[in-house]
Amino acid sequence: MMRKLEDMLNAIQPLDRALLQQARDRLDLMAIPRGSLGRLEEFAQRVAGIRNTLDPAPGKKAIAVFAGDHGVAEEGVSAFARDVTAQMVYNFVRGGAGINVLARQAGASVVVVDIGVAIDLQPQEGLLIRKVAHGTRNMRRFPAMEKDEALKALLVGVQIAEDLASKEVTLIGTGDMGIANTTASSAITAVLTGRSVEEVTGRGTGVTDDMLRHKVKVIREAIDLHRPDPRHPMDVLAKLGGLEIAGIAGLIIGSAFHRIPVVVDGFISSAAALVAVSLKSALREYLFAGHRSAEQGHRIVLEWLGLDPLLDLSMRLGEGTGAALGMFLIESGIRVLREVLTFEQAGVKKAVH
Amino acid sequence: MMRKLEDMLNAIQPLDRALLQQARDRLDLMAIPRGSLGRLEEFAQRVAGIRNTLDPAPGKKAIAVFAGDHGVAEEGVSAFARDVTAQMVYNFVRGGAGINVLARQAGASVVVVDIGVAIDLQPQEGLLIRKVAHGTRNMRRFPAMEKDEALKALLVGVQIAEDLASKEVTLIGTGDMGIANTTASSAITAVLTGRSVEEVTGRGTGVTDDMLRHKVKVIREAIDLHRPDPRHPMDVLAKLGGLEIAGIAGLIIGSAFHRIPVVVDGFISSAAALVAVSLKSALREYLFAGHRSAEQGHRIVLEWLGLDPLLDLSMRLGEGTGAALGMFLIESGIRVLREVLTFEQAGVKKAVH
Repeated sequence: MMRKLEDMLNAIQPLDRALLQQARDRLDLMAIPRGSLGRLEEFAQRVAGIRNTLDPAPGKKAIAVFAGDHGVAEEGVSAFARDVTAQMVYNFVRGGAGINVLARQAGASVVVVDIGVAIDLQPQEGLLIRKVAHGTRNMRRFPAMEKDEALKALLVGVQIAEDLASKEVTLIGTGDMGIANTTASSAITAVLTGRSVEEVTGRGTGVTDDMLRHKVKVIREAIDLHRPDPRHPMDVLAKLGGLEIAGIAGLIIGSAFHRIPVVVDGFISSAAALVAVSLKSALREYLFAGHRSAEQGHRIVLEWLGLDPLLDLSMRLGEGTGAALGMFLIESGIRVLREVLTFEQAGVKKAVH
Repeated sequence: MMRKLEDMLNAIQPLDRALLQQARDRLDLMAIPRGSLGRLEEFAQRVAGIRNTLDPAPGKKAIAVFAGDHGVAEEGVSAFARDVTAQMVYNFVRGGAGINVLARQAGASVVVVDIGVAIDLQPQEGLLIRKVAHGTRNMRRFPAMEKDEALKALLVGVQIAEDLASKEVTLIGTGDMGIANTTASSAITAVLTGRSVEEVTGRGTGVTDDMLRHKVKVIREAIDLHRPDPRHPMDVLAKLGGLEIAGIAGLIIGSAFHRIPVVVDGFISSAAALVAVSLKSALREYLFAGHRSAEQGHRIVLEWLGLDPLLDLSMRLGEGTGAALGMFLIESGIRVLREVLTFEQAGVKKAVH
């Protein structure tokens, strides 16, 4: 399994600078003041680079939402009870959650993956059961996952990316569900960015001041207990992570391997991106940050990743909602590249100086 | 004519606080952590207030692009020649411009209005000829418009809003085309906000340092010559404005009168909003700022208007491109209000505290 991951990571290379320049040249011919479509042009250029074509036709879009439970929820670090993870998975399948609504608006399909929900879910249409474990263990006392489990969960994400690639999906969004998963994400972020636990730990779904202090303490204790090695992202992921975080990291890796741009959602997805980019730095060029979440710590992850978020709407829901909105903007950039006429085509005079 | 405008302005009233609260209450029942869809919830709430219903079904969307020429272009304040205005109008009608591409992406129709292009355009499908004058006069030497012309142009915009309302359009975007219209917009902005000309004057489509200095000088001279009275927005609009700016101001007023939310584009459209809101302060609640443009001065107008822009993508094209992108986000908010299930409907447990 490790070999498969290593081969994929080796295959992910920096984007072709010549092709990026050709995309830039095409954009500069458009009948608009040079650069006046701002970041839409940047998105277009980078999508061309990722998909390795100057003509990246907009295709199908999909958001994969990975759901997993967290043993650390028993420490009282979330405003919601642990069984809400499963309840929300059923809500996703029914189409009534925020991600369903925003994915419909963005024209994206939603793939719901049970990668580690604590209870056994009823099999049903629209739900992929790829359970690696019935939740993680409580990281305050045990490593959240065995290394093997973390790798297995990561490869589930890779497999989802492969399935989407084979269905001609050309833009992938990430999503998460898992009560207590901001706790895991903050822990991963603290270790991989070297920032303090306080700086990267926020209120998640909305804990009180007391609970926030307790959450910071739990994360500190988990890090002190396991001493994960920041030079080995898989070690950090296994000891502090979540099954859904591993799945998202795998989705990102698999998407980049298949040259599909990935729109990363908020804090949880970005912690997964942190793992993926720590495994292979060239990966960052394949990513877009859908939005900046209101969750404390997300700003720090985005800065570390070098990703400038597309949106900043004070959202903090997760599920892939920020990715869904961001996909619309990425697609807007693609259409600009393909559809805006040049000065010559449009019969418009260029700037006079 | 003045009477019609006054009647409309009188009819525009602050949003119903009780209805806004009911919308807020509905949002608080959704099966998400309270407030976690951030500004999407704010958009939903305000659209409910504007449309005066708790169930504002997403309907047709339209962007009206007003095109007019500016006499002040002869002072060499733009990087582009004046005939580009007409050339771009033809490009809009053909569907090859930035606004066409982004309106298609947003699912909005584009209405192109010749309200004051200097040359007579060939009548053709998709082009509304509502010419009030063959461009404005050079404001460095004459008032840009007679008061009567400014009012007439404003009422053209009102009429377009009425036409769209009768076609069951439920979300309206503003757009502009007019070589040298950042010069007019900066002049209006300086007078109505009381800020210095330097602060509110930028590079428009991309002038050199020398041209920028000259542009500031031209605007200062025009203001010194005409001494427009900031307490009389129609005086400011007539002396320094553009026909398309007047048209956009009218579109905004007409839309608010018909209780249709308006997504304001960039700097030019915001200068028009400044005129409209100066005429009737309650109007500001009916507006959304599609984006923050890279044009210097836009930030100042948005602050004065009290509008927090939806996007900040370093765009500075105008045409309604920022409005088109913003419409997607407003519609996302509407769908959240209507489609996200409540805790009860979804069978999800509420927060434990």
